[in-house]
Amino acid sequence: MEHASAGYSVTIRVRIKNIPGKLSRLLRRVGALGGSIAEVVLLHSEFHFNIREITINCSSVEHAEQIIRHAPTVEGIELISWRDDTFELHRGGKLEIASRTVLRTHDQLSRAYTPGVARVCAAIASAADKAHEYTIKGNFIAIVTDGSAVLGMGNIGPAAALPVMEGKAILFKQFGGVDAFPVCLATQQTEEIIQTVQRISPVFGGINLEDVAAPRCFEIEERLQDALDVPVFHDDQHGTAVVVLAGLLNAVKLVGKELPQLKVVINGFGAAGVACARILLSSGVGNIVPCDSHGIIHRGRKEGMNLIKQNMAEKVNPNNEQGSLTQALRQADVFIGVSAPGVLTPDMVREMSEDPIVFALANPVPEIDPEELQGIARVIATGRSDYENQINNVLCFPGLFRGALDCRARKITEGMKLAAARAIAQAVSVEDLGQGRIVPDIYKEGLGALVARSVSAAAAADGVARVSPSLD
Amino acid sequence: MEHASAGYSVTIRVRIKNIPGKLSRLLRRVGALGGSIAEVVLLHSEFHFNIREITINCSSVEHAEQIIRHAPTVEGIELISWRDDTFELHRGGKLEIASRTVLRTHDQLSRAYTPGVARVCAAIASAADKAHEYTIKGNFIAIVTDGSAVLGMGNIGPAAALPVMEGKAILFKQFGGVDAFPVCLATQQTEEIIQTVQRISPVFGGINLEDVAAPRCFEIEERLQDALDVPVFHDDQHGTAVVVLAGLLNAVKLVGKELPQLKVVINGFGAAGVACARILLSSGVGNIVPCDSHGIIHRGRKEGMNLIKQNMAEKVNPNNEQGSLTQALRQADVFIGVSAPGVLTPDMVREMSEDPIVFALANPVPEIDPEELQGIARVIATGRSDYENQINNVLCFPGLFRGALDCRARKITEGMKLAAARAIAQAVSVEDLGQGRIVPDIYKEGLGALVARSVSAAAAADGVARVSPSLD
Repeated sequence: MEHASAGYSVTIRVRIKNIPGKLSRLLRRVGALGGSIAEVVLLHSEFHFNIREITINCSSVEHAEQIIRHAPTVEGIELISWRDDTFELHRGGKLEIASRTVLRTHDQLSRAYTPGVARVCAAIASAADKAHEYTIKGNFIAIVTDGSAVLGMGNIGPAAALPVMEGKAILFKQFGGVDAFPVCLATQQTEEIIQTVQRISPVFGGINLEDVAAPRCFEIEERLQDALDVPVFHDDQHGTAVVVLAGLLNAVKLVGKELPQLKVVINGFGAAGVACARILLSSGVGNIVPCDSHGIIHRGRKEGMNLIKQNMAEKVNPNNEQGSLTQALRQADVFIGVSAPGVLTPDMVREMSEDPIVFALANPVPEIDPEELQGIARVIATGRSDYENQINNVLCFPGLFRGALDCRARKITEGMKLAAARAIAQAVSVEDLGQGRIVPDIYKEGLGALVARSVSAAAAADGVARVSPSLD
Repeated sequence: MEHASAGYSVTIRVRIKNIPGKLSRLLRRVGALGGSIAEVVLLHSEFHFNIREITINCSSVEHAEQIIRHAPTVEGIELISWRDDTFELHRGGKLEIASRTVLRTHDQLSRAYTPGVARVCAAIASAADKAHEYTIKGNFIAIVTDGSAVLGMGNIGPAAALPVMEGKAILFKQFGGVDAFPVCLATQQTEEIIQTVQRISPVFGGINLEDVAAPRCFEIEERLQDALDVPVFHDDQHGTAVVVLAGLLNAVKLVGKELPQLKVVINGFGAAGVACARILLSSGVGNIVPCDSHGIIHRGRKEGMNLIKQNMAEKVNPNNEQGSLTQALRQADVFIGVSAPGVLTPDMVREMSEDPIVFALANPVPEIDPEELQGIARVIATGRSDYENQINNVLCFPGLFRGALDCRARKITEGMKLAAARAIAQAVSVEDLGQGRIVPDIYKEGLGALVARSVSAAAAADGVARVSPSLD
């Protein structure tokens, strides 16, 4: 059975007879049914009974229903109501607009709106760059999706993708102080997506592409970056790649290897896989062997190729290895999976070189259950929050955009991505660094600011910064 | 000289010798230069001197510069620095995104983002209407502009229009609790605007068109309303028309006339003028005579006509009057100007029937200076905040959209607009009603909620409401 998760939690409201031992019997019952108690709150207390709310993490909707049905059947306990906490949290949406200024008087209104506002408009009309300074463009980015490749769900369309984009916006704000607005497009045509983003671009200081399917995501990102003078960043590609590199930088420290000597197998060659290959190339990894469902991608391969795989085959796989994933993994130092559940076995990892590093990032179910690799792999990372070493994009994107906005970067360069990866890696102190800690916790204080500073500096070095970030 | 306004205020920081009378000498000086003191703040005080900030309302940028140059030349007073308050208020933009939920723990994150969020996505994928309930669509509208007809500034483009749209978003939030996001489009082509708004529509529960030039605004609104199942509302047309009708309903009470007996001359037949004619028709005004720069619009007129004027000429001007604005005004009860400064003279108003009602709404400079009509017109209204009876759209749009969102209206009907106008008119109590008070103050407590309730009820009556608004 899956782990109980807060993502499947329910809160039951129960009336419990005031007899010692009643509450604990209920909790035992929940535990016996596989539920995990998160919180117990006393709402109301009288002489004969208490009313409590108990939040229970479950492993699925069916599991939650089972617990609701069977747990409160203890004598002296009565179920009053229950709610699904995830749906409750989403009720009314997760975002709102706030005014950065209060308009309590007619005078304040005269500045923020007519007539005063006209002078600010005129200033921007005569010097467009002033929009970064005097409008929301300076701190707002768009989270653009067409809903075609959403989390593990695939092509669910723009409306159904919105809750994910809202969540992403919260993360941008909380960890980077970046204001992000979800733009969910009712089209999945490459040309229409590019066109639409260009047309709405005046308001935004950056574009974060999200959950757009490959291969169209590559063209959309590239052409938008050419068309716009603000950063365009496809997080599923580069966010993942940056955090993978950050984790790898720390993992190789642990095993005493160097990037140029590494053999890295990347399995899965969609958006994230391609981006991982690119950033590992930029950072000097010596031998990158990409694989997909047809096996190793090599020069001369015919089946399952596309333009991107062909181009990449010219740059990686220096020994032009051929064959299956199993063959690719022989004597490999690192496995990076951005593919599908179950494609990796303990035996395959046993064939890797000493101290294997395994990043099994398929989500929500990894390429291999980390428990199966205990004692076999030296470092294991996944995309999940309930295991150690979560390769989580949120370590990257808030700080990266913070840094880009702070210096009004025109684009995100390769150097800025590498700088972000190094900053994330360095956020794990020498004392903390260990097999179970190759990336920082997402709540690590100051992480976003640390990444931002590195990114701004790299932007300046790469000549894409329009201003020096203010030092405050 | 123009009135001093907070829209042109500057704040000077001065070091003042601690000698009695120094401050008052400075203030006298400011007054003599035509500046109006708004605030005096003591920042710092020592034995020999004080440091103060003084906010001074001025009438223009040149005026402000003059005051800064000449006011602090009093002996014992030293200017430390100064700032333009309007630009300061705009620094960094006026809006931000806020999370409606705090994500302090990994558990909370598991609900708002992956894995929990996936269940909400799935629910919307299988029942699209749930987006109103579990995403920001339920309370978010887009403020869409192409920057082609912005306030008094005309075609300044999308980036320069943004400060106005941000201001509008603040008003939506403050007076209606409606979350609004500025969408400033880098296109002024009708087809492209329609297309773009359709493509970004999944996120929004309503579309407020703003500062889009006539005649394209008519087609855009109509076609978008046909294409989308959420309200589309061009505020420059209908917001103005609703508040004009509200003011007129109260003005006729004062003079003891009835709508069916009125002769109303509308001067200026762009977006606002057309909408005023339409709403007055719907509300039963007997004789509407529209005019433009070519004079009275009548059946058979050849010059300066377009499709909209032709259509309208069939429905209004029952006596098919011809001639100039001056001729139109003879024996008219009401003048509504949405045209240009200076087109109305006291003599023209003297030719109107008894108790003339004059709405001189050209902005920022009205069709006639209200002071010239003292003793001639019975009721005078303008679009300006520094005169009585400001016909201000903000009386309408926050409450109107609040009401539309509360009942998930599919569109804004004629009935909903009339309901909004009646609610605004009724917000002026019988005791308050007077020549100088035909519309409520924009800060009137509860106005937005009052308008919202009327609008929701009208939506239900017109069959466009999807739910009953909750009663809280």
